[in-house]
Amino acid sequence: MWENDLARLLHIEYPIIQAPMAGGPTTPELVAAVSNAGGLGTIGAGYMSPSQLREQIRKVKTLTSFGFGVNLFVPSKFAVDQDKIMNANLSLKSIKTFFNIREDIDIHRLPDYDQSIAIFYEQIQVIADEKVQICSFTFGIPDQKVLQQLKEHSIVVIGTATTVNEALLNEIAGMDAVVVQGSEAGGHRGTFQSEVQDSLIGLMSFIPQAADLVKIPLIAAGGIMDGRGVIASKILGAKGVQMGTAFLTCKESGANRAHKHAILHASEDEAVLTNAFSGKMARGIKNTFMMKMKDEQNVAEYPLQNELTKKIRAAAAESNNPDYMSLWSGQSSRMARDFKVEDLMKKVIMEAERIAVSIK
Amino acid sequence: MWENDLARLLHIEYPIIQAPMAGGPTTPELVAAVSNAGGLGTIGAGYMSPSQLREQIRKVKTLTSFGFGVNLFVPSKFAVDQDKIMNANLSLKSIKTFFNIREDIDIHRLPDYDQSIAIFYEQIQVIADEKVQICSFTFGIPDQKVLQQLKEHSIVVIGTATTVNEALLNEIAGMDAVVVQGSEAGGHRGTFQSEVQDSLIGLMSFIPQAADLVKIPLIAAGGIMDGRGVIASKILGAKGVQMGTAFLTCKESGANRAHKHAILHASEDEAVLTNAFSGKMARGIKNTFMMKMKDEQNVAEYPLQNELTKKIRAAAAESNNPDYMSLWSGQSSRMARDFKVEDLMKKVIMEAERIAVSIK
Repeated sequence: MWENDLARLLHIEYPIIQAPMAGGPTTPELVAAVSNAGGLGTIGAGYMSPSQLREQIRKVKTLTSFGFGVNLFVPSKFAVDQDKIMNANLSLKSIKTFFNIREDIDIHRLPDYDQSIAIFYEQIQVIADEKVQICSFTFGIPDQKVLQQLKEHSIVVIGTATTVNEALLNEIAGMDAVVVQGSEAGGHRGTFQSEVQDSLIGLMSFIPQAADLVKIPLIAAGGIMDGRGVIASKILGAKGVQMGTAFLTCKESGANRAHKHAILHASEDEAVLTNAFSGKMARGIKNTFMMKMKDEQNVAEYPLQNELTKKIRAAAAESNNPDYMSLWSGQSSRMARDFKVEDLMKKVIMEAERIAVSIK
Repeated sequence: MWENDLARLLHIEYPIIQAPMAGGPTTPELVAAVSNAGGLGTIGAGYMSPSQLREQIRKVKTLTSFGFGVNLFVPSKFAVDQDKIMNANLSLKSIKTFFNIREDIDIHRLPDYDQSIAIFYEQIQVIADEKVQICSFTFGIPDQKVLQQLKEHSIVVIGTATTVNEALLNEIAGMDAVVVQGSEAGGHRGTFQSEVQDSLIGLMSFIPQAADLVKIPLIAAGGIMDGRGVIASKILGAKGVQMGTAFLTCKESGANRAHKHAILHASEDEAVLTNAFSGKMARGIKNTFMMKMKDEQNVAEYPLQNELTKKIRAAAAESNNPDYMSLWSGQSSRMARDFKVEDLMKKVIMEAERIAVSIK
């Protein structure tokens, strides 16, 4: 029942992928536990420096002999507009005062596009050097030079799409598989071609329409937490699933304790969209920060807003204060549990196998 | 495979319900064809006068000996704020001029809540008098007097929910089944308790979370077009499906020709949300009217905005101009075809049966 072209491509027993969750959750322990259980663990490396990434990869290697993946954010052009940045920073001022964050943003130390792309190329080099088996991308499609470099090292490449057209663009670019990120998904929207507001397609619509047109294997992402989601995704046309929130609350996840607690106590309509943390739309559990920033027009572009809110998020994390940290979550939080990865994987696999034999 | 408590409750062979689409699509021919094919046809009576409704019911009865349903809009309180209405009307002025709609809105002829509720009670009386088998509701839960009246006539009552809490409220009120309307769905959002923006839950998340808590049968709605959607919904925990867009483009549907054409040529990211047509959020294919009204703050409450735009929509329909009519559609428009109802039903049923035996 589990063997298919995606499982073969990734050399895994169960086509269940742990979603890359940048910023803490994907500890080496989490990534390795998923791969050890027959799925595919993924390091969410979007915010990692090349040296941090190398260290993480090496740690995972000590914990598993199975393959695993690394996910990178593809940089896109952004302008450093000083007025806009100052205004965006001003709109965060009262919150910074609340946390006793006193020093101002140094406009000359903010990342620019050239720096972002240089770091990205270094990350790619680390992945090639370390012979990581799988490299997945979010926020866009890297240039052909990057994809060729990875392919020369026999590294499987996976893209992310939020519309059928984005999935087709990934296929045309030469991706081996593509994640179809439904509107249910937590964390950042992977949208890179359309308007984010138009690209919130529920998986019931997204998977079959993509399956009808895209030839490379589809990986369904968004709201999938158990065997029901795995089999439903398969029936709709996906070859595998990617689960984020389900792994985020696992014991091995490095997510902040307050973040896990918020997910474990949230209902499906509390995980809503905001661009206030990073400048890019992402789904997380509504909290004080999101409510305060709800109608705020002064939000800097990604990744600049992310820099501007960095100290707020750090201070919130330090004081275990869920009101001002990003509580990324998909729309299925009612199904989240604090399992060990091995137990979650066993449960999902057993449920899926039971459903598959019972349906007729 | 098809028999279950929902099919028994509705006395149908296949638990496939044609969604109530108020305002034209649900001709007696469409409703009867669905019931004749073993599903459940539904008259979308939201905008019908009691006498129009009686006439429609009687017409359907001449075309089928099977049961069918009627869907009503549950009125909720709204204020007639004259300034707000005048401003909303002003923001439509240039469009009205474009269509040579000259006369102004007569503020004293707009519906108020008392009138709306009086019409609703008359609609209920017609349904009871005509011994319609099933009555479904959108936009809220009617008072117990209404539900008792219907139950005394052995009429099955079905509610609509966009969150788990709304589904539970329907169960508590005594509904026999509840439609779980996913974010994928076309037309009006049925949200009545939460904020619409927070209640856009994709079916991959919504169905299993509702199934875990709600005991009455769930009917999945939103983006379901074929056998894949039917079986996926079943696996996620629904007992049946409700399909709107799939029936809207059928030959028997009374939807405007330009409306059908727009759906048959749209991609999934073109069906977006707007409140500009009626004052309530609804999903339809983006057109000139929606773009012009995108950032418009002066939109009257439902159903007042619906009255204000009535002549624009009528003029657009008359000139077969898709730019200014409401092109309601779910997110699965790429899967829409202009089948005869009988052929669509056969295709969906055969696909579902084939999938059910092939999965293991």
